[in-house]
Amino acid sequence: MQDVIGELVQKNDKKIVLLVLDGVGGLPMEPGGKTELEAAETPNLDALAAESECGLHLPIGYGITPGSAPGHLALFGYPPTEYPIGRGVVAALGIGFPLQAGDVAIRANFATRDAEGNITDRRAGRIPTEKCAELCSLLADISIPGVELFIKPVKDYRAVIIFRGEGLSEQVRDTDPQKTGVKALDPEPVTDTGRRMAEVAKEFIAQAWDLLKDLTPANALLVRGFAELPQIPSMQDRFGLKSLALAVYPDYKGVSRLVGMDVAEGLNDLEAQAGALRENWDSYDYFFVHHKYTDSKGEDGDFPGKVAEIEKVDAFVPRILALKPDVLLVTGDHSTPARLRAHSSHAVPFLIHSRNVRPDGAKAFGERDCLAGTWTNLPGAMLMPLALGYADKLKKYGA
Amino acid sequence: MQDVIGELVQKNDKKIVLLVLDGVGGLPMEPGGKTELEAAETPNLDALAAESECGLHLPIGYGITPGSAPGHLALFGYPPTEYPIGRGVVAALGIGFPLQAGDVAIRANFATRDAEGNITDRRAGRIPTEKCAELCSLLADISIPGVELFIKPVKDYRAVIIFRGEGLSEQVRDTDPQKTGVKALDPEPVTDTGRRMAEVAKEFIAQAWDLLKDLTPANALLVRGFAELPQIPSMQDRFGLKSLALAVYPDYKGVSRLVGMDVAEGLNDLEAQAGALRENWDSYDYFFVHHKYTDSKGEDGDFPGKVAEIEKVDAFVPRILALKPDVLLVTGDHSTPARLRAHSSHAVPFLIHSRNVRPDGAKAFGERDCLAGTWTNLPGAMLMPLALGYADKLKKYGA
Repeated sequence: MQDVIGELVQKNDKKIVLLVLDGVGGLPMEPGGKTELEAAETPNLDALAAESECGLHLPIGYGITPGSAPGHLALFGYPPTEYPIGRGVVAALGIGFPLQAGDVAIRANFATRDAEGNITDRRAGRIPTEKCAELCSLLADISIPGVELFIKPVKDYRAVIIFRGEGLSEQVRDTDPQKTGVKALDPEPVTDTGRRMAEVAKEFIAQAWDLLKDLTPANALLVRGFAELPQIPSMQDRFGLKSLALAVYPDYKGVSRLVGMDVAEGLNDLEAQAGALRENWDSYDYFFVHHKYTDSKGEDGDFPGKVAEIEKVDAFVPRILALKPDVLLVTGDHSTPARLRAHSSHAVPFLIHSRNVRPDGAKAFGERDCLAGTWTNLPGAMLMPLALGYADKLKKYGA
Repeated sequence: MQDVIGELVQKNDKKIVLLVLDGVGGLPMEPGGKTELEAAETPNLDALAAESECGLHLPIGYGITPGSAPGHLALFGYPPTEYPIGRGVVAALGIGFPLQAGDVAIRANFATRDAEGNITDRRAGRIPTEKCAELCSLLADISIPGVELFIKPVKDYRAVIIFRGEGLSEQVRDTDPQKTGVKALDPEPVTDTGRRMAEVAKEFIAQAWDLLKDLTPANALLVRGFAELPQIPSMQDRFGLKSLALAVYPDYKGVSRLVGMDVAEGLNDLEAQAGALRENWDSYDYFFVHHKYTDSKGEDGDFPGKVAEIEKVDAFVPRILALKPDVLLVTGDHSTPARLRAHSSHAVPFLIHSRNVRPDGAKAFGERDCLAGTWTNLPGAMLMPLALGYADKLKKYGA
């Protein structure tokens, strides 16, 4: 029903700001308690909510826990299931690797095999990240004619490998057998297009296994998620928006680049992000401001820590309001309740503030307050059309 | 999910009334204020809301401002993006022209050109409607073998032209260059199907320019929006409803005819509409009663005027209730907040009243009241299945 948005886009000089508190949605630690957002002292966000339209959105769908990349794609107006991002690309973006068109990225796990070549541990005893980095350096000796290789540690036993060269493709099967006691699989092509990539991957794995052979527990390498950079229309092409990402972490810069945003570099905290926002105010239509630590504290199970991060962002809100954005959207890319120490499927509270919104029943910024708002169960990717609408960036449909 | 409606339709003698307050959704003029509907004294609608299911619907989609024709299509149960109506057809319907299958309608603008034939004003100095009507009469002299022509003024410099004949098609490009200082474009066929229409249009424009050549500022004619009557299944075929439109304005009679409604003629006000409703009560299943002036006052930016129009309709509600409709739906085709002086993307409040509804939290008829109702963010085209359901006009799905 929203396929017509592209035909309706009209440009103007109105400014839209998306402020993301990563993983902001939460849960009470005990029955009857408050969520992190409800417990936080957020005078600025509460005042804003009282004059905003509020609601809760579902980034991917009912019951589905979003990963960070699809969660952000939804916020940027791209229904995530229509724009799948392969595992390898997510991993590469996650470490901030600047992927180019034609690159193929894969996730690699260091693993343990026995004398017969059967996999005995798919995670090599969960070696620490430092060890992983050391092994990645070792694998830099691998050489394949016509292919440039990048081998980067991610976390613990996880690495990412990027293949750059002519004729490569994501049409290749995983080698990870997904269980122990069996041999690794061959990287078979899924279609004819994958033939060259499969040969390159086979050669890569052979050289890798040879280099690793005496380094138990990390004496093998399993790969999965062959993925090319997806073809995603840019924010400019799709929504007519010249957009700038103000993020500290490489993952979020990566997903921003995927949709053609410019990315401000060298920002280390909200203070720097506020400065960059002000400096670039006249040059862009759309600003994505990202705060990571609400999610980090949630993943740590640190309820008071997450509350404190929310309060930090609350104190930052006046810096945005001082610039008088035409539309300010405040939300998260998913929920990360401290009680669960992980991303969760819970709907994510949001507020959308503009001179054009219709006030509703939400008087503060919290999960239950937002339930009294205008929008419940909103598909996350619909936040963008709402923002465009209130910024007068969509023409009337039909006469 | 609603594609099965057609298979489930069952006929009975239950009556459904759709009462449309055009553009009823509104906004407060000042932060903290009331909307037009909230400010209006509406004892009848409030009492009705208290025993109805209430909610807010989105005629086209999130963030999208509906035009009148697609807004009404939604209310009639036709998802507007599945039934696009071309600009020419909208214009012809707008003046109440009885389009026939095979007709091609186009929007025409009188314009100004210089000695070289370059367009210097795409609106001919915004000539008044009377002048436009005069020019349309002049163009009645145009003759093209095998084609019947209708040239009608719309408003200011805008006219509509209907071509009737064999082998015509909407597959032709606009001649309006959309900017000044350049020549008008040729009416090129978009596909082979458009070849004959393109030739006819070329000949028409040549004769028109010749007739207009000394009539500066209106010495040229630009056309756009070649459109055939869309193939829309009738209300009878789709929903088993014998339906009657009780509207004053030609636009709304036009869109009613598009879905195969009968149209009561000669109605000039709510009093006449009430009389016609009563007279025709036994002959139809579905009645569409349209009140235009809520929208007109909204477009004028006249908040108290819009409030007064809402109150007029409120006083009319007992006339409908006296007939004991089995389902009464009260809503708008879009929002037209007086503050914005235009259609807007805001959700539209509605109530659906029937012996079979489940009462909810809405105790009065207003935007915020309806948020406490059963249905929020309802796609507008889903109002029809709800009405059919409560009128027992849909069989059980499956055993």
